[in-house]
Amino acid sequence: MGDLLGVAVLGAGHMGADHIRRLDRMVNGARVAAVADPDAARAKEAVAGTEGASVHTEAEAALDAPGVEAVLIASPGPAHEEALLSAFARGLPVLCEKPMVPDSAGALRVVEAEARLGRRLAQIGFMRRYDTEYRRLKALLDDGRLGRALMLHCVHRNVSSPPDFTSAMLVNSSVSHEIDAARWLLGQELTAVTVLRPRPSAGAPQGLLDPQFVLFETAGGALVDVEVFVNCGFGYQVRCEAVCERGAARIGDDRGMLVTAGGSAGAEVPQDYLVRFADAYDREVQAWVDATRRGRVTGPTAWDGYAASVVAEAGVAALESGTRTTVDLAALPELYAVTGR
Amino acid sequence: MGDLLGVAVLGAGHMGADHIRRLDRMVNGARVAAVADPDAARAKEAVAGTEGASVHTEAEAALDAPGVEAVLIASPGPAHEEALLSAFARGLPVLCEKPMVPDSAGALRVVEAEARLGRRLAQIGFMRRYDTEYRRLKALLDDGRLGRALMLHCVHRNVSSPPDFTSAMLVNSSVSHEIDAARWLLGQELTAVTVLRPRPSAGAPQGLLDPQFVLFETAGGALVDVEVFVNCGFGYQVRCEAVCERGAARIGDDRGMLVTAGGSAGAEVPQDYLVRFADAYDREVQAWVDATRRGRVTGPTAWDGYAASVVAEAGVAALESGTRTTVDLAALPELYAVTGR
Amino acid sequence: MGDLLGVAVLGAGHMGADHIRRLDRMVNGARVAAVADPDAARAKEAVAGTEGASVHTEAEAALDAPGVEAVLIASPGPAHEEALLSAFARGLPVLCEKPMVPDSAGALRVVEAEARLGRRLAQIGFMRRYDTEYRRLKALLDDGRLGRALMLHCVHRNVSSPPDFTSAMLVNSSVSHEIDAARWLLGQELTAVTVLRPRPSAGAPQGLLDPQFVLFETAGGALVDVEVFVNCGFGYQVRCEAVCERGAARIGDDRGMLVTAGGSAGAEVPQDYLVRFADAYDREVQAWVDATRRGRVTGPTAWDGYAASVVAEAGVAALESGTRTTVDLAALPELYAVTGR
Amino acid sequence: MGDLLGVAVLGAGHMGADHIRRLDRMVNGARVAAVADPDAARAKEAVAGTEGASVHTEAEAALDAPGVEAVLIASPGPAHEEALLSAFARGLPVLCEKPMVPDSAGALRVVEAEARLGRRLAQIGFMRRYDTEYRRLKALLDDGRLGRALMLHCVHRNVSSPPDFTSAMLVNSSVSHEIDAARWLLGQELTAVTVLRPRPSAGAPQGLLDPQFVLFETAGGALVDVEVFVNCGFGYQVRCEAVCERGAARIGDDRGMLVTAGGSAGAEVPQDYLVRFADAYDREVQAWVDATRRGRVTGPTAWDGYAASVVAEAGVAALESGTRTTVDLAALPELYAVTGR
Repeated sequence: MGDLLGVAVLGAGHMGADHIRRLDRMVNGARVAAVADPDAARAKEAVAGTEGASVHTEAEAALDAPGVEAVLIASPGPAHEEALLSAFARGLPVLCEKPMVPDSAGALRVVEAEARLGRRLAQIGFMRRYDTEYRRLKALLDDGRLGRALMLHCVHRNVSSPPDFTSAMLVNSSVSHEIDAARWLLGQELTAVTVLRPRPSAGAPQGLLDPQFVLFETAGGALVDVEVFVNCGFGYQVRCEAVCERGAARIGDDRGMLVTAGGSAGAEVPQDYLVRFADAYDREVQAWVDATRRGRVTGPTAWDGYAASVVAEAGVAALESGTRTTVDLAALPELYAVTGR
Repeated sequence: MGDLLGVAVLGAGHMGADHIRRLDRMVNGARVAAVADPDAARAKEAVAGTEGASVHTEAEAALDAPGVEAVLIASPGPAHEEALLSAFARGLPVLCEKPMVPDSAGALRVVEAEARLGRRLAQIGFMRRYDTEYRRLKALLDDGRLGRALMLHCVHRNVSSPPDFTSAMLVNSSVSHEIDAARWLLGQELTAVTVLRPRPSAGAPQGLLDPQFVLFETAGGALVDVEVFVNCGFGYQVRCEAVCERGAARIGDDRGMLVTAGGSAGAEVPQDYLVRFADAYDREVQAWVDATRRGRVTGPTAWDGYAASVVAEAGVAALESGTRTTVDLAALPELYAVTGR
Repeated sequence: MGDLLGVAVLGAGHMGADHIRRLDRMVNGARVAAVADPDAARAKEAVAGTEGASVHTEAEAALDAPGVEAVLIASPGPAHEEALLSAFARGLPVLCEKPMVPDSAGALRVVEAEARLGRRLAQIGFMRRYDTEYRRLKALLDDGRLGRALMLHCVHRNVSSPPDFTSAMLVNSSVSHEIDAARWLLGQELTAVTVLRPRPSAGAPQGLLDPQFVLFETAGGALVDVEVFVNCGFGYQVRCEAVCERGAARIGDDRGMLVTAGGSAGAEVPQDYLVRFADAYDREVQAWVDATRRGRVTGPTAWDGYAASVVAEAGVAALESGTRTTVDLAALPELYAVTGR
Repeated sequence: MGDLLGVAVLGAGHMGADHIRRLDRMVNGARVAAVADPDAARAKEAVAGTEGASVHTEAEAALDAPGVEAVLIASPGPAHEEALLSAFARGLPVLCEKPMVPDSAGALRVVEAEARLGRRLAQIGFMRRYDTEYRRLKALLDDGRLGRALMLHCVHRNVSSPPDFTSAMLVNSSVSHEIDAARWLLGQELTAVTVLRPRPSAGAPQGLLDPQFVLFETAGGALVDVEVFVNCGFGYQVRCEAVCERGAARIGDDRGMLVTAGGSAGAEVPQDYLVRFADAYDREVQAWVDATRRGRVTGPTAWDGYAASVVAEAGVAALESGTRTTVDLAALPELYAVTGR
């Protein structure tokens, strides 16, 4: 792969700024080429420290800015339809935050526009499909080992809801993640929905129907139930248990994925250190690159490497002699005393 | 930050090739500028698909190649000392895989050379310090909530050992990770070591003392014990329990960190979706950038976005009516039927 | 307490025989005084080895047998009403297996009969109320720490259903345990029920609607959902999670009781060995009494006691000397070599 | 089995009183025939409410009391040797609390005395052998599935130590449980011991070496390590992990037993409700017998039985109609309103 992909980010609010940071610091192969937000000051602040990003107050101007090859839409939902259609008109690939378009009529217009193009340009931001645990559950369901999925039991709990959160938003904002996850995990469309309303929690704002219990039926006859409780007070919990014909698997709890099948309930044990520590290696090298580009050196020192050698040698001597062996280090050079560990 | 950091990778074996892929695909802000391996064919293969990397058979040649600003040493351990000193001579920052230098005399020469420079250039590849669980354990020990650490109980198990693995290598290769982790977690040097040798497992190669039980004493009077068992047959397990004056914390077992203190044993529950799904966001955007640069579109489709809107609207209707509400989707455009989900 | 309570057991089938064994071997303070079963051979077999139990083919005869002071009804459900009314007529206390009476009209007649007596004689066999985990959950809900319970999520899974199990029996036999548990845990009557029927599992017998998903509403506005799946194939699982205003608690999974509240998810750690090993003490003394009454001696030997003393003394010497200390045992007397450990 | 076994209990302190309660209330087939304690008042209090127990200040008098057929020794350790020899002289079976005899010379005298008798009379109170989890671990090790045991990692933690607890008592009192458990689990004698002393916890009383780390070697070449920490402050924890040639198994942590083998870490799922709820059945019937003998009726009421019937009928109607069905109960008779649930 050659040059960096130039991305226009639409929207510089909480989510947009987070994506700008991600493109600039975490993701390989891309750069922020332009940003648009009606609030120019906010847009400028979001790209401070990011080199080469032009700032705009109009989405269309950002799409037309030099170097823009792709679009990330992180503006408020009502602006998405127009932004998607603009990107389609320019043939630009798009990553669009959820909801794609808040109302289904507008969403259908987007689908029809892309279908007319005859090729896909849009990816929608259902990021749970990229979560390690969800991917493992999806892989398990797809490999057929547990048979067909009969039910999904889901839990979606937030500590507290934002101001002005409405009873409808529990369904069309919070549960929208479970809607996509259920469709994806089961590979089936949802065909009917029922919402049950237990007596609201004393911890919920006056008038908010919280919690709710949402039931989906699917085209294949499966059942999906979702507890959504956005003022549970005790933490953010997302849980999903798939009950299949020959076993059940649960994620989001206290192990990676707990599989119950054939008389035992257990978690997979990795077979390799590259699986267990893959993320650590990525973070290590990223941290080194980041520090180096800033002219700094951080992380384990040569002294740490030296001390490990000395201890390992003493260990081998202890192994061979069968006795306690002392570890004798040289004097600590001032360099390491100062920069510390 | 401006241009990409040009990295010379020394060694194109298993670990070197993995780091080349990492710098090229996962890490932001760097590029592979040169690679060196005595086996030129192996070096070439490792950078196939990586643009702009020169290939060398000599480490020094790679360090002097155009665009090289930093070095990643992934060659065999015996080559490290010379490579580190060469990098120091050129003022190049280095990330050096462990062991820094296999023998402590050589390691001390590296320390002294860097000390003479008067500034740090080297970071040693003890990647466990970048593992999420180890970092949480370190943070917990450092915040003082549990009091002083009195003991670390460690387990290091591999499915099977490579050919030619010796009894000494259980200590100076496998346990070297625990050596650094113990020094780092406790902030203390190790002062003595004892190695106990239970009767070897029938699953170990003839003549290999496996498992071993290694005991370290520390400058602060703590005790570190390590079960090292490199032919355990059942998986890769790395576990560490810190026993402190007011509680104990264990990682590497259940997901996360299990803290026992004040009459309960439990795991922290995240308070926010950005904590829970941070990795998913990173992977989502990386996957989108990667596909886009290859001219492809993958991931959730506009149809997925549309379907979510329709289901959400039906859900709100169900909430308001209190009854089961059917979901009515438009016909699926052929575009999505073909590209699938 | 003085003499043993004389119990008439009605029914000598699977459950009845189990209760006879329990009264004879496990329970303190009772004896089986009479047993009744239409199948006299089965009744005789059930009390073989039990001293002093008369055998009858008619329930009434057993109730009138000498020494009968209380009744345990373990006959088939349709016989319960008559047996209960007979016990009431004689003023005999009764423990009646569930279902008390299969049809609610008959059940109401029993209630009315006992109400006319003006005092309670009957205890119904909802044994989950005596399960350690359920009792802990009940205690937690009652102490008010988590606030009001809003929802119960229940799971009831069996490996496979008996022959002739009908779709209705998933509700009125399997779920009847959850019906009582929900009423007891919440302290509320159930006011409405809905049953959802996902597409049956391929593992269920032809025609059986298995699994089912049952929803109960309660007088206090709580919601109770129950997955009942009697041909899950992989094990017997009974799970119950209570979701409350300030936390959630789950039993029946892989810890005693997992409580999520205030940012952490955890299990209680006992403070005392008498809590942790209470059952072990009971079993130990019971095993000793049982063996002694049979003229046998089992369990840990005097040699075990001696060896523990020697090792402990060596341990103290090792502690004091700071060195490895060998353990020197006397020669093993033949007595212990023969009776083994 | 016929009459109740008459037991003389020696010692009416904490442990003796607990065993008297156990024999009287929990254990089937025995009765307390005599009790001896130098403190006659304490002995009398311990048997208050127990019918037919004679009270003595001398152990020998209790052994000779009418109806005594067996002895339970719960007096202080130094009195055990004489009590055991007295029981042997009378041919009485004995259950003797641990330590059998505190010093190994006395312990050996007991062993020799029993060996001279040529038959076993004594069972020693190592009650962990009766703990469900330990028994499962023992069974797993014995069935050979995981191969030979190579190491046991043990943890023994108490909240705090009693007054006057000495450093030696960590080894010869606390760890004595692990000494027996290790010998029993492995079926091997312990051959050497080493005690390591980390810097004491700030939470330990001045001068007490707490925690300690005790290492045992066994006749078969296995290694047993024990963390003993009697002022850990946070709870009572007893843990044991057996590391074998083909897997590892841990108890005392999560509920049940966690087995790691063949690439997964998991717990067994019971296949049957009788396994899962065995204890609940025992407690239920015991509670009923106890209440009945006191002339009381407790537990689930006939109203509970009736309500379950009504709800179950509504459930079946809901299943058949596919709709929400209300539950209609008769009026609650005053009897149940008063006695409550």
